[in-house]
Amino acid sequence: MAAWGERLAGVRGVLLDISGVLYDGGEGGGAPIPGSVEALARLKRSQLKVRFCTNESQKSRGDLVGMLRRLGFDISEGEVTAPAPATCLILKERGLRPHLLIHDGVRSEFDQIDTSNPNCVVIADAGDGFSYQNMNKAFQVLMELENPVLFSLGKGRYYKETSGLMLDVGPYTKALEYACGIEAEVVGKPSPEFFKSALREMRVEAHQAIMIGDDIVGDVSGAQRCGMRALQVRTGKFRPSDEHHPEVKADGYVGDLAEAVDLLLQHADK
Amino acid sequence: MAAWGERLAGVRGVLLDISGVLYDGGEGGGAPIPGSVEALARLKRSQLKVRFCTNESQKSRGDLVGMLRRLGFDISEGEVTAPAPATCLILKERGLRPHLLIHDGVRSEFDQIDTSNPNCVVIADAGDGFSYQNMNKAFQVLMELENPVLFSLGKGRYYKETSGLMLDVGPYTKALEYACGIEAEVVGKPSPEFFKSALREMRVEAHQAIMIGDDIVGDVSGAQRCGMRALQVRTGKFRPSDEHHPEVKADGYVGDLAEAVDLLLQHADK
Repeated sequence: MAAWGERLAGVRGVLLDISGVLYDGGEGGGAPIPGSVEALARLKRSQLKVRFCTNESQKSRGDLVGMLRRLGFDISEGEVTAPAPATCLILKERGLRPHLLIHDGVRSEFDQIDTSNPNCVVIADAGDGFSYQNMNKAFQVLMELENPVLFSLGKGRYYKETSGLMLDVGPYTKALEYACGIEAEVVGKPSPEFFKSALREMRVEAHQAIMIGDDIVGDVSGAQRCGMRALQVRTGKFRPSDEHHPEVKADGYVGDLAEAVDLLLQHADK
Repeated sequence: MAAWGERLAGVRGVLLDISGVLYDGGEGGGAPIPGSVEALARLKRSQLKVRFCTNESQKSRGDLVGMLRRLGFDISEGEVTAPAPATCLILKERGLRPHLLIHDGVRSEFDQIDTSNPNCVVIADAGDGFSYQNMNKAFQVLMELENPVLFSLGKGRYYKETSGLMLDVGPYTKALEYACGIEAEVVGKPSPEFFKSALREMRVEAHQAIMIGDDIVGDVSGAQRCGMRALQVRTGKFRPSDEHHPEVKADGYVGDLAEAVDLLLQHADK
């Protein structure tokens, strides 16, 4: 691999994943990853632009930011690109009224959205809300539409909580895709549109931006396919086999956010 | 299309789907499809061999037959090929101990099966049993196995009850396949092994047999891929678009079982 100076040259903006990079979720709200509170503070004092790009869809952006601030992170709602607000924009643009199969924690994001007489379905990580009855209702709504439209907030397979592996939204999206013979529109990483909207909001071109995440596919591959660079941290859902992924190679692998910030402050925008 | 005489020439045995052909399920046990009780009686009085080939996996074979007899159908347990008994044979042959994600109504079929310390998962149409908790448990069992083995009792997308369309096991199998990165072994239609076991039990060669079903993929395509002929009835889950399916063309489309039997008695085995 080239030297870090070469790999990070010209970086002007940093997109940060949240879960697994800033903190680990779990019972009682989770805990910061050691060094990440201070690393984020240093990054924000630098010349580099910073934005957060998350697939979190069990919590509203306000609740997520409130939780992170209580953990000590310097973050505000306006700095976060998240699937639920992005979906609301799309629904408004296209005049769509969703049936919502979502977690109660994120329902407030859709307060301004007309959900009467639905003409599409929005599915997000609903956790225990993925009952047979709720899945069947979403299925029936889709089957009654002439052109069934399904939005999936991310398409992750599973995530890790302190209690063990938990099914994410992806398997349930696959279930509805198979049941209805359709393909969902994914809002969230690794969708290129989602990364592009984060870049627009940060006002940085793709070739001047770098993504830092723990997911070799959702974060690293997704960002690279948009023309960005990407670092993978060895925290969160990172697995050693990720460094030998058959198709994806990060622009660098670092121990954690603190190491990534050290390298960026030393080498970026030179 | 050729004349019926040509299409049905040489048929000696008839495989009948049950749900959507004989009766429609639903509240209170469902109701016979008009004309089907009498049509089955006529068919069984003829020279043609008859066997039932179902993906029913919410009920034991005994309960299914009891219900059908109460509705007036001439049917006995020994005439039915069903996924749960077929799965038990496979589990015993391969020395596997399943974690069962199944409906309580079919649990008695597995009474003789060792389910301690599971080394595979069996998924069947569990209906309301498809809770997030139950799905997550099956997922966790699979993820803890070195070689995860998943048996799916059928892979249907959905079925029709009097109250509307209901998700079948297939979408939930897809969900676990995606979550674990594996492929399930299907026991039931349209698996060729399953049709072949029904043909063996009926003692008729594939080219002399015809399947009558309401499912363009599970019944019609599955039977045709085994060398059988297949009729689709316009009852049960039939949809008008099935007659223009991009890949599957039935050997004939008929209004209901009564019409199918009329045609068979007129033209088969000539």
